[in-house]
Amino acid sequence: MANSMEDARARRIAEYLHSTEGVTKTFGLVMEGAGLGWAKCSMVVKESMTNGHKVCHGGVLFSLADNAFAWACNSRNVIAFAQSASISFIAPAKIGEKVTAHAQEEANEGRTGIYTVKITAEDGRTIAVFQGLSRTAGGKVVAE
Amino acid sequence: MANSMEDARARRIAEYLHSTEGVTKTFGLVMEGAGLGWAKCSMVVKESMTNGHKVCHGGVLFSLADNAFAWACNSRNVIAFAQSASISFIAPAKIGEKVTAHAQEEANEGRTGIYTVKITAEDGRTIAVFQGLSRTAGGKVVAE
Amino acid sequence: MANSMEDARARRIAEYLHSTEGVTKTFGLVMEGAGLGWAKCSMVVKESMTNGHKVCHGGVLFSLADNAFAWACNSRNVIAFAQSASISFIAPAKIGEKVTAHAQEEANEGRTGIYTVKITAEDGRTIAVFQGLSRTAGGKVVAE
Amino acid sequence: MANSMEDARARRIAEYLHSTEGVTKTFGLVMEGAGLGWAKCSMVVKESMTNGHKVCHGGVLFSLADNAFAWACNSRNVIAFAQSASISFIAPAKIGEKVTAHAQEEANEGRTGIYTVKITAEDGRTIAVFQGLSRTAGGKVVAE
Repeated sequence: MANSMEDARARRIAEYLHSTEGVTKTFGLVMEGAGLGWAKCSMVVKESMTNGHKVCHGGVLFSLADNAFAWACNSRNVIAFAQSASISFIAPAKIGEKVTAHAQEEANEGRTGIYTVKITAEDGRTIAVFQGLSRTAGGKVVAE
Repeated sequence: MANSMEDARARRIAEYLHSTEGVTKTFGLVMEGAGLGWAKCSMVVKESMTNGHKVCHGGVLFSLADNAFAWACNSRNVIAFAQSASISFIAPAKIGEKVTAHAQEEANEGRTGIYTVKITAEDGRTIAVFQGLSRTAGGKVVAE
Repeated sequence: MANSMEDARARRIAEYLHSTEGVTKTFGLVMEGAGLGWAKCSMVVKESMTNGHKVCHGGVLFSLADNAFAWACNSRNVIAFAQSASISFIAPAKIGEKVTAHAQEEANEGRTGIYTVKITAEDGRTIAVFQGLSRTAGGKVVAE
Repeated sequence: MANSMEDARARRIAEYLHSTEGVTKTFGLVMEGAGLGWAKCSMVVKESMTNGHKVCHGGVLFSLADNAFAWACNSRNVIAFAQSASISFIAPAKIGEKVTAHAQEEANEGRTGIYTVKITAEDGRTIAVFQGLSRTAGGKVVAE
């Protein structure tokens, strides 16, 4: 299968997952692009996503990263789940800011995959860096 | 200061943070209890919190844990922020299930604190385990 | 099987693993106790374990925690491996100090286990807190 | 300061740290290269580095990654320490294999830095992926 076909399928997978995720509306997630082993997801920080310090809640940033991770780790059309993840926070994201999570595959071996997801703001600030471990469960995400 | 006074203040801090957090309504978070170095936060999983597999999104579970962690790491009335966190997922949480995050201080030294947060369902299943690293920024959370 | 029998077997497993681990001599690891879902492992910090700041290297502390984790996650006599782990460092461990890692099971479901390991010094200081995710591979550790 | 001068200083810092680390001999660590925000460190897996399954101990792999991370996060000549780190293991490293850790800066803001470290074997297999959070303490690593 040509690379462009794999990328097209990965994009179709991200679109499919995006359409079925209950959090899509909750966080206003936008699918910014996807291909084999990678995906980009963005959102605009809203009041409903803040913590007690009135900046974006760490859990909402994690959700954004986790979503890009999910699209990327399912991009080979084998259903995969997050097993564990870690995140380091480096700068706050303010209300009104658009933040984008870019997930990139680091390794993929047997049933295990490792992904780095970087969240950046429009001015180029890195907001957080996430690392996720996925495990495939078998079954296809979309029909081929 | 007696322990009961510290616990009462910790409870007041959790109530204050809870009242100012933008995610309170988004996730329907309930403050289930708080004291010096610990806090409990619950929510009921709703359709708006699901991933593409129609179980609770990992980011929403992380948010629940992160919120209990925030209350616990601010419980000494010194403003503190999450620096990094990791989470391991062990069982899915279904729509309609009530899940509770229990944050407990493991260590607290200088400006750094480490907390374990366990998320459990009502039937006793462990859903996820979270570990957070906090750093104090100075300043009080509530007036004394 | 009575609890005391399970604990005795867990102790036998830790002793067996301890006897086969190549790092036992490298770090001077001591098995301080083990039972179902828990284990304790100690070492004395030596010059050969230091980083450039002449305190115990973070990787050596991780090794100590990882070793207690390995004994604990194999304690049910099903061969298990570490899949991922995270560690937060809170205080340095000095040359000559005895440090002990205490691994405790947080959750155990299907093939997945989650463990918290706390490293403490003899004066009670917490040195680091570790969280590990294990996965069973099948097969027994010791004959029954 | 030109980029090449910063890279030369980073290399001098890695060489200095390498010469003072107590674990250098313990693990047979080799400095394979360093520049501003990155470093490479290798070792050959020996019997003294194995776990009970006779493959490289997870803690020793973590140590290798942590060492490359230390060189990279000190590469701006401001003393920095690891605060937290996470690692995901994807394939075992066997006795006799040379494994190399490549640390790369993901973000650097104020006193905080985030680094990804990938450990690979000579045949190209990814062995583990590590993410570290550093914090500067002030003071220079080497004289300028």
